[in-house]
Amino acid sequence: MSEVDAFVKANERYASSFKKGHLTMPPARRVAVVACMDARLDPARILGLEEGDAHVIRNAGGRAADALRSLVISQQLLGTREVVVIHHTDCGMLTFTNDHLKQKLRDGLGVEADLDFLPFSDLDQSVRDDVEAIRESRLLVGGVPVTGFVYDVRTGRLRKTA
Amino acid sequence: MSEVDAFVKANERYASSFKKGHLTMPPARRVAVVACMDARLDPARILGLEEGDAHVIRNAGGRAADALRSLVISQQLLGTREVVVIHHTDCGMLTFTNDHLKQKLRDGLGVEADLDFLPFSDLDQSVRDDVEAIRESRLLVGGVPVTGFVYDVRTGRLRKTA
Repeated sequence: MSEVDAFVKANERYASSFKKGHLTMPPARRVAVVACMDARLDPARILGLEEGDAHVIRNAGGRAADALRSLVISQQLLGTREVVVIHHTDCGMLTFTNDHLKQKLRDGLGVEADLDFLPFSDLDQSVRDDVEAIRESRLLVGGVPVTGFVYDVRTGRLRKTA
Repeated sequence: MSEVDAFVKANERYASSFKKGHLTMPPARRVAVVACMDARLDPARILGLEEGDAHVIRNAGGRAADALRSLVISQQLLGTREVVVIHHTDCGMLTFTNDHLKQKLRDGLGVEADLDFLPFSDLDQSVRDDVEAIRESRLLVGGVPVTGFVYDVRTGRLRKTA
């Protein structure tokens, strides 16, 4: 069963009271958020973002390496000048290793994956690492504030870690 | 001026009425959404997603190539079995070429970028290309429904394109 019909219906409701058609492309608050794709973490709700406020880049873990292309575009073409990194408790990235996932792909799909899946074993350290990677990337604007948080999926609360 | 203090305050409000601490890691609706990072597009609001419902992967353009690592993790470790791709009108990806952005990085930061920024010149075609890339990736589960939409930032409306 596909969820598409339910999404289309929900979108009709959203569009019927839509009043944001005047917004322009550059994010009003000049921030790019890098966060995990986890279903329990909604960056807009936990940060109080409205449509038009901020770029939101999300991937498995909220890893900087996978966000670099997007951050360059965000800064160079759309003028953001701040980055916020959000990882979270009970993250799937803490539950596997590259070898484990590659074996799963071999067993399940019969395929060899030549890919670093960027898992981590220490949550706070993963935030510090990604904040540092963004601060030190030669492709990103220097001196831009970069802040790192851990989001607690049991309490809804952010904790600043970097 | 950093936006962090405002985010922390907004998060205090969110956490003070938080009732979703019981949710588990696998997305309840077993869907992974791949969407653009654009500030005007909020996947949760436009699709009617609640916390816990779906993985949300976002990058500049909502490009499949940049979402592959996350989709593998979503399917292999967290059991999603559907993908929805969302690109949108007035997208920044329509406004530049790789050469243009590389020159901007050379001029602004004095750096040579060895990166494909994945711009596109035809919006509907970009959705079809990414839906096909996901359908045909050997690293992803075969036969999973993959649907593509264009989101109109002026009307709030989704249009199915693939």
